[in-house]
Amino acid sequence: MKLPLRILGVLFVYLSLSSFAFCQNIEIQRLEPSHWYIGMNGGKLQLLVYGPNISKSDVRLKKYKGVKLSKINKVENPNYLFLDLTISSKTKPGNINLIFSNDKGAFEQPFEIKEKSGYQTAGVNSSDFIYLLMPDRFANGDPSNDKFDDMADPNSDRKNPWQRHGGDLKGIQNHLDYFKELGVTALWLNPVLENNQPLTDEGGQMRSAYHGYGITNHYEVDKRLGGNKAYLDLVEESHKNNLKIIHDAVYNHVGVNHWILKDLPMKSWLNQWDSYTNTSYKDQPLLDPHASAYDYKMVQNGWFVPFLPDLNQQNEYVANYLIQNALWLTEYFKLDAWRIDTYIYNDLEFMNRCNQAILDEYPNIHIFGESWVNSVPNQAYFTRNKLEVPFKCNQPGTVDFQLEFAMNAALNESYGWNEGVQKLYQVLGQDYLYEDASKLVTFLDNHDMDRYYSVIGEDFDNYKMGLAWLLTTRGIPQLYYGTEFLMKNFKNPTDAEVRKDFPGGFEGDSVNKFVAAGRTEKENEAFNFVKKVANFRKNSEAIKFGKLVQFLPFDEGVYVYFRISDKEVVMVAANTSKVDKTINLDRFSEIIGNSLSGTEIVKNIEFKEAKELKIRTKETFIINLKK
Amino acid sequence: MKLPLRILGVLFVYLSLSSFAFCQNIEIQRLEPSHWYIGMNGGKLQLLVYGPNISKSDVRLKKYKGVKLSKINKVENPNYLFLDLTISSKTKPGNINLIFSNDKGAFEQPFEIKEKSGYQTAGVNSSDFIYLLMPDRFANGDPSNDKFDDMADPNSDRKNPWQRHGGDLKGIQNHLDYFKELGVTALWLNPVLENNQPLTDEGGQMRSAYHGYGITNHYEVDKRLGGNKAYLDLVEESHKNNLKIIHDAVYNHVGVNHWILKDLPMKSWLNQWDSYTNTSYKDQPLLDPHASAYDYKMVQNGWFVPFLPDLNQQNEYVANYLIQNALWLTEYFKLDAWRIDTYIYNDLEFMNRCNQAILDEYPNIHIFGESWVNSVPNQAYFTRNKLEVPFKCNQPGTVDFQLEFAMNAALNESYGWNEGVQKLYQVLGQDYLYEDASKLVTFLDNHDMDRYYSVIGEDFDNYKMGLAWLLTTRGIPQLYYGTEFLMKNFKNPTDAEVRKDFPGGFEGDSVNKFVAAGRTEKENEAFNFVKKVANFRKNSEAIKFGKLVQFLPFDEGVYVYFRISDKEVVMVAANTSKVDKTINLDRFSEIIGNSLSGTEIVKNIEFKEAKELKIRTKETFIINLKK
Repeated sequence: MKLPLRILGVLFVYLSLSSFAFCQNIEIQRLEPSHWYIGMNGGKLQLLVYGPNISKSDVRLKKYKGVKLSKINKVENPNYLFLDLTISSKTKPGNINLIFSNDKGAFEQPFEIKEKSGYQTAGVNSSDFIYLLMPDRFANGDPSNDKFDDMADPNSDRKNPWQRHGGDLKGIQNHLDYFKELGVTALWLNPVLENNQPLTDEGGQMRSAYHGYGITNHYEVDKRLGGNKAYLDLVEESHKNNLKIIHDAVYNHVGVNHWILKDLPMKSWLNQWDSYTNTSYKDQPLLDPHASAYDYKMVQNGWFVPFLPDLNQQNEYVANYLIQNALWLTEYFKLDAWRIDTYIYNDLEFMNRCNQAILDEYPNIHIFGESWVNSVPNQAYFTRNKLEVPFKCNQPGTVDFQLEFAMNAALNESYGWNEGVQKLYQVLGQDYLYEDASKLVTFLDNHDMDRYYSVIGEDFDNYKMGLAWLLTTRGIPQLYYGTEFLMKNFKNPTDAEVRKDFPGGFEGDSVNKFVAAGRTEKENEAFNFVKKVANFRKNSEAIKFGKLVQFLPFDEGVYVYFRISDKEVVMVAANTSKVDKTINLDRFSEIIGNSLSGTEIVKNIEFKEAKELKIRTKETFIINLKK
Repeated sequence: MKLPLRILGVLFVYLSLSSFAFCQNIEIQRLEPSHWYIGMNGGKLQLLVYGPNISKSDVRLKKYKGVKLSKINKVENPNYLFLDLTISSKTKPGNINLIFSNDKGAFEQPFEIKEKSGYQTAGVNSSDFIYLLMPDRFANGDPSNDKFDDMADPNSDRKNPWQRHGGDLKGIQNHLDYFKELGVTALWLNPVLENNQPLTDEGGQMRSAYHGYGITNHYEVDKRLGGNKAYLDLVEESHKNNLKIIHDAVYNHVGVNHWILKDLPMKSWLNQWDSYTNTSYKDQPLLDPHASAYDYKMVQNGWFVPFLPDLNQQNEYVANYLIQNALWLTEYFKLDAWRIDTYIYNDLEFMNRCNQAILDEYPNIHIFGESWVNSVPNQAYFTRNKLEVPFKCNQPGTVDFQLEFAMNAALNESYGWNEGVQKLYQVLGQDYLYEDASKLVTFLDNHDMDRYYSVIGEDFDNYKMGLAWLLTTRGIPQLYYGTEFLMKNFKNPTDAEVRKDFPGGFEGDSVNKFVAAGRTEKENEAFNFVKKVANFRKNSEAIKFGKLVQFLPFDEGVYVYFRISDKEVVMVAANTSKVDKTINLDRFSEIIGNSLSGTEIVKNIEFKEAKELKIRTKETFIINLKK
């Protein structure tokens, strides 16, 4: 299959950087990964080699102590070879040389084997506070990388919600102090790998490519975000500032412009259908003991959307490709955690292999997927759980949609037997289904959802209540950018409505929300609330690692829980009812004893041997108890 | 504590029937159980002896081969003795004699040890169809037992919803043919043990005692239902007619007039509180790893209502008393299954012991409790499940409230992502949480709920759809009396509204719904629908024991599932959408192959190599496929 001119152009740039040697007739256009590490993946590596009729060549490895070419795999498409290498952990770093030959000649292809850096992340855990941002929409730190003529979408236009706006990794790096001030300890960036996707589909309809979920090159960060160099810089500077980096992975599908789609190694690289077939987006057939084969196949192999072709992870070459890429990225960029997109649509056997490969190399790394399902047990199924089921997922964490639904219900619904704040209580009450619920990532909204402040009807008391819960209950809290200064909007008409540019992140912005002076009084009150609680959290062993004890919501919607460590007790009380309440504190004697003494951390109210607590409608207390 | 005159009267009747021997000063007023069985309960028996200062007597056992008095237990109240007997399985039946003596004399108390009947029930399982009825409201077979002057409520008045109406066990026995005609194979009677409860509480407010959930004597069936004799007769006749009997047990509490409450053996016989404390009725604190001790105690030890005192099942004497009673009742009456009232409010350790004791004697018996909770995992928790939890319930089945909620939602709600018939699909999709979901008892309504036909807005198409699901999906279906001829009503203003007398069951009834001539045309259509499907079910291995395969609801609410056995396939298709549909049958090819051939069992429609299926809005098909 002939590569289009534009792609060849890209290839040329790539190849010229890679200092490949060419002989007359043997041409290697892609070699992935670009290099490898000694001791990684149990010493196994499957090298993808791409070039015209490359499989017709003989291949051998020039003698290199500790490295063997153990198997040469030819596949349907003669333009590919998959070379299995075995690399001893005692091998010395350097270039190995693969010698390709045919009747017209031969050439040597060098391939570098490096020492691992020795970087071992502590992972992201319940002591962290994650800030989620969309790199294209956060801040533009380098206007020179806003657009490139050789990209499928060569433009950049902040007025167009579908188009790239110029945000980049340098822009994020420029605001590390902002995150630190807010109390953030980890950044989750929407995917940064190349998304060389067209702005319109074949029918001419606009579709977004700026969000990052249509990867077109697994080994290059998008150059409009600054490329690999900018990501390396961001991680390095973030780590210096005690900020962790969470990488957003997309294993299920690739962008329609992924280079490999132009000339597939084999038909089964993708989940193929006779005619376009969408996933049902339903989790149930994966768990249901009564599920039909039809529905199971539909959810697993159906495509997410037409322009994101679905990878067949049961194909061993695809699986190796993705797993090696994950290991390579972790080592190369020194990542602290993986967030996995559309977890449930992936082949779950593959996901277990992939997670395990990462965990084998980085035992403390955190991995949490997006399982957008609608019940606690089904959510628990996709992470390490307490279910006796035929298939056990090994994912350490998951994004906690159930708690998101519940917190928003608690803030929006009237109190009832199973309504309102009861839902929050009940969802936490099903934590027995998880191996460790403290590893779940909790949130109030994200890039795919209506913004939190809008969902709760721009009610400022409720805003604080939800954030207080987020920052003090179990789990790893995640804030979506802008929520700290009341950014709002619903997804209608497009997702871009909830992915607006961070004001002040772009040249010419009339206001700058990164600084107090650019925020309104109310926005500062919001910002300072988050800052206060997040920074209190940072130093609170009870909140970070303590036991949670919750009480049944009572008195038409008063909800009280405690976080308890050896030396500290924090009480969180919220009144979701429509009227002011006075709570008798006897109910909590198992924790507080006869009376309550402590300090409310936001309002600085002192309680001394209190027997009751007056709490206004919609009021929240976070009380640091004397112990 | 002085016994009121009325109670002493009751005692006298009891004692005169028991042919006790009296000496001058030693008096035994109660001995429970009344007799025991060789080989039961591992040869252990704890005999309750009640009489004035009985604990001051010496006790010994007259020599009887294989029986030992192993321990004499004295408790707080000197009017009680709890005698531990060990009975060898090789002991011969007969009367043992306990000799009580003090300085004034002695007397012999005989106690009979019988052979077990050898009765072993096959239990109630997914091949059965249960009919639930309230004995007082079903049929009056013996007007001579309608009222007794010596009962706390000496009256009977069909015009008063709170009062007894005169229904009895003989009335049920008189209609065994009716059940058989309908296709019923098992009867679940609301509790039959004596409920000698007052009609009004101390404040003079009416409260119902006819329902049977306030037991006042654990060894006597209420004489207004016909007493022990009538229950023995009913079971015997039912068994002759291949109808099983399900006994409704109340372990959690007793009626306020229970004889033992007049003079408690010890304060801890009951869960005592400083002032009256109601249960929270909430299951979550029992499972929640974050639960407070306060909430746990509240749900377990709080009282169900003020006039049903809560037994402390952690008290070993209480536990023994209840377990022995359960074994005795099963053996004496030859019961086929136990339904357990308010399962979650019982002490769960006790429930496991009690269930196990019954299962040790009758391995095939079925036990299913009422766990009125609001999620599948929490419901699964209270039965044998696939949860790795610190405490494992051993209950073989449970009443399936989640499916009840889901079926009614499917019939009442519009189709949505998680709404309408999706709920039905989703609840069944969580069967992975149970050890064996086929042991759940499924239902559309019961004596505590608004009646099914009213809940679905008296929509006759939906009526049939729900019943088709009930009778063909997994589980053991249960019908509430009267639903077969469209009895309706909401609980408001009292539960009695959904417990109306079965028309034709009482003398002077102007209509008789037991016969076709007494039913309207529509009622007969309903009756015949249930009869048709239930009798088809009776002979369908696929429905009774086959595998369930369900398909994701599609096309705005078409829901299709199959029941599959080695030799038979049954397809159930329902259109919950608001418009007529034509279904392409390709989707089901894994089961039906290229086309559909079979017979719709109610409408007698023949399908021959059909490629598609036209199904009207709200229409249901039950198709017996050729195989």
